[in-house]
Amino acid sequence: MPEKVVVIGAGPVGSLAALYAAVRGHDVEVYEFRPDLRDPETVPLNFAKSINLALSERGINSLRQTGLKDLTNAVLGETFPMHGRMIHTRKQGQNVREPQLYDARGKSLLAMDRTVLNKTLLDHLESLPNVHLFFNHKLVGADFKNHTAWLEHHTPSSSSPTETEIKFDLLIGADGAHSAVRYHLMKFVPMSYQQEYIDKLWCQFHIPPTASGGFRLPPNYLHIWPQDNAMFIALPNLDQTFTATLFLARSDFAQLDASSTVVEYFAQKFPGVVPDLITEDALRTQYATNQHLPLISIKCSPYHFGAAGVIVGDAAHAMVPFYGQGMNAGLEDVRVLFDFLDKHPHDRAAALREYSQQRTPDAQTINDLALRNYQEMATDVKKPMYLLRKWIEETLDLYVPGAGWATQYSRVTFSNMRYSEVREAEQRQARILNLVVGLAVVSLVGSGFWFARAGGVQRVERGFWKSVCWAARGMNGIVRG
Amino acid sequence: MPEKVVVIGAGPVGSLAALYAAVRGHDVEVYEFRPDLRDPETVPLNFAKSINLALSERGINSLRQTGLKDLTNAVLGETFPMHGRMIHTRKQGQNVREPQLYDARGKSLLAMDRTVLNKTLLDHLESLPNVHLFFNHKLVGADFKNHTAWLEHHTPSSSSPTETEIKFDLLIGADGAHSAVRYHLMKFVPMSYQQEYIDKLWCQFHIPPTASGGFRLPPNYLHIWPQDNAMFIALPNLDQTFTATLFLARSDFAQLDASSTVVEYFAQKFPGVVPDLITEDALRTQYATNQHLPLISIKCSPYHFGAAGVIVGDAAHAMVPFYGQGMNAGLEDVRVLFDFLDKHPHDRAAALREYSQQRTPDAQTINDLALRNYQEMATDVKKPMYLLRKWIEETLDLYVPGAGWATQYSRVTFSNMRYSEVREAEQRQARILNLVVGLAVVSLVGSGFWFARAGGVQRVERGFWKSVCWAARGMNGIVRG
Repeated sequence: MPEKVVVIGAGPVGSLAALYAAVRGHDVEVYEFRPDLRDPETVPLNFAKSINLALSERGINSLRQTGLKDLTNAVLGETFPMHGRMIHTRKQGQNVREPQLYDARGKSLLAMDRTVLNKTLLDHLESLPNVHLFFNHKLVGADFKNHTAWLEHHTPSSSSPTETEIKFDLLIGADGAHSAVRYHLMKFVPMSYQQEYIDKLWCQFHIPPTASGGFRLPPNYLHIWPQDNAMFIALPNLDQTFTATLFLARSDFAQLDASSTVVEYFAQKFPGVVPDLITEDALRTQYATNQHLPLISIKCSPYHFGAAGVIVGDAAHAMVPFYGQGMNAGLEDVRVLFDFLDKHPHDRAAALREYSQQRTPDAQTINDLALRNYQEMATDVKKPMYLLRKWIEETLDLYVPGAGWATQYSRVTFSNMRYSEVREAEQRQARILNLVVGLAVVSLVGSGFWFARAGGVQRVERGFWKSVCWAARGMNGIVRG
Repeated sequence: MPEKVVVIGAGPVGSLAALYAAVRGHDVEVYEFRPDLRDPETVPLNFAKSINLALSERGINSLRQTGLKDLTNAVLGETFPMHGRMIHTRKQGQNVREPQLYDARGKSLLAMDRTVLNKTLLDHLESLPNVHLFFNHKLVGADFKNHTAWLEHHTPSSSSPTETEIKFDLLIGADGAHSAVRYHLMKFVPMSYQQEYIDKLWCQFHIPPTASGGFRLPPNYLHIWPQDNAMFIALPNLDQTFTATLFLARSDFAQLDASSTVVEYFAQKFPGVVPDLITEDALRTQYATNQHLPLISIKCSPYHFGAAGVIVGDAAHAMVPFYGQGMNAGLEDVRVLFDFLDKHPHDRAAALREYSQQRTPDAQTINDLALRNYQEMATDVKKPMYLLRKWIEETLDLYVPGAGWATQYSRVTFSNMRYSEVREAEQRQARILNLVVGLAVVSLVGSGFWFARAGGVQRVERGFWKSVCWAARGMNGIVRG
């Protein structure tokens, strides 16, 4: 029996939720606070030229599970693959670029413009007869016991908004970090809630194409200038431009503002950016014009009330952007939510309860991992130990088949494994890796023993491999154990 | 120069803030969402007959610092002193009542009806020419950059509210745990915010006077039935009644609801309550009628934006009721806030900043202590070790003058020491107490030594006192050190 599903928020996550409900035959209404972003007069979100996403397996899989192949292909057609990171540093006075592939098996992140993804989803939604889109509608109240919500319609022509009352079977809140749905849900369910602003702000920059219309940097990479307390990154766009972001502590931004030395700062910290990618004037103008925006991290529990309301995406778990998972986790929320709704076709309360129970620890895990990943992006990527561990893990993945070895990054980005299970697998691997190091030492000592006993190089070589073989057998036992 | 101070919320904390602003000559406007609680038709807060507070030093001192002696006396005249706790347990089949005094020097908590306190403050506010009170006004928006707020006036006669825009120099949010001021403040300042519902609900009961009009329990006590996971308490009222509260885990409430065995439960857990204090019928009726309400714990930071807005009381730090400090801390907020405003008469931004900086750790401390104090009230008060430590600390307080010794409870309840300093002093004392125990052992060993050496009882006695003396000298050195 078709039900009335109301979605608050027509961003990518809300649009996908509406699609999932629509393909199941429900009557769907989507209410968005902002004007339609497909309208050329609409000021883009956050006033920046574009916001780039890194679409990866969880997001793509969630699109795929709509069953709408054309839509998935349309989205994928608008992406640009990034095979790895390109680390920009200065070594002995030279600007150095070092690529690091994301995945031992060649999987890629897909750079995409948030607006393009959103438009593609909205266009598809609008073509469905059982979906109605309403823009400029602000949620001002919700009664989850009586399945009623109130919305204010703001029209540009009239100064006073008109209020409408609507009924719903299920209301899905996909209205972002400052969610109004969550605010009203809190009045019906005792919700644990935590929000924290980290001590980094971000500011966006635009890197134009070269005079001949090409990319100014190797395009298939996510470019990083890691400077510990500061970080500059650049993601490619289809139009040969890059969208770049500066991350900096609040106090460092304040200092730059006061001293007007942003060009000197970039020259010192981020080699090869000024004037090769951005002119001094453009840098100054964009730094002054583009907002310095905060980063919020949100955890809450539960995500639902009874059979009536549920929150997804940033409304439930806004996270910092350092793992590139915010959008992917939000799209995955929709898939997981509808998996549970499909599992309990006649008991929506059970579906929402199980969704909350399963999704809360997963979302909190990726939230924590995202907070920690700043360290990986801004510091660790420069360190030999990090690269060594990455190499060992990838080598084990490739050459110890069946052990199910993978880097945490690969599991988060290129699999659909539950985030909480990724963390458990990672912790298990860390214990084993410590053992591997121990066994490597044993191998070397073993080689020394053969050398001391027999002297000859051939013998040492044979002894070394014997020791390695012994170590590998031990490893295999541990991994399978 | 008088400024326009707008206070949102006319509860006790908001009313006191308005008084502090008024006695400094400012133009004060107070907006309250609810109807005037002095109106006999107003339904009381939370639908319970009354809510009892334990007024203590911080609250009283904050009233006193208004300089309005008549007001302070009027409030104190409506209080009922509680010298200690009365612990109700069952031992060897007998109902046992054991008193525990709150303070070695005889200081008392003052039980008071929240509504009476609120009415007294409102009556006084209304008599001042520079204060205007507005009830049934809901804050719907606030722009702290432009010092503007919007309020909806709900009148019983008209169904659609009217909206008014007001200007302010300073807006003080005293609008409780679900503060609208805080909600709007969050849009202007990156606020860390945390809310948590503990796993206890509370339900209120009314204990009537005896047939001859007397108290059914010794009146000068806060009565506690400590049952670890459950707790029942009763506070005296001036009209010879008691206001009692049951605290119970959510799941235990659900079990009682389902099994309809509340009378049996009380008979088993809380000796002497049914039918001596409440009849079986009254217990059943009140359990069914009075709401089972949640307990929220809130921490946030900072409390202000620029020179324009600040939050106080539950809006800033709602806490669980187990230390009896929620209201006292809220009233103290007002005193501390105006201390800083007096300190910086020409720089309100500095005053609010320093207020936030000083008050945040203090509020978070009492918030934590309140969470932990459930354990003290529901479990520890029954334990000999707890009583021994209380006795040692109080004895040291009385007989080691100058050492500044006191129990944590006494410092929280009967002093104006900053909460964060109370915790530091407590931690210092805990270290010393461990030493005291060590020295006591030394004393006993010393006695044994004298006994072994000389044999006679007189010698042992002298030896014991010599050892104690030695120990006490060591103690004194440590305490002063």
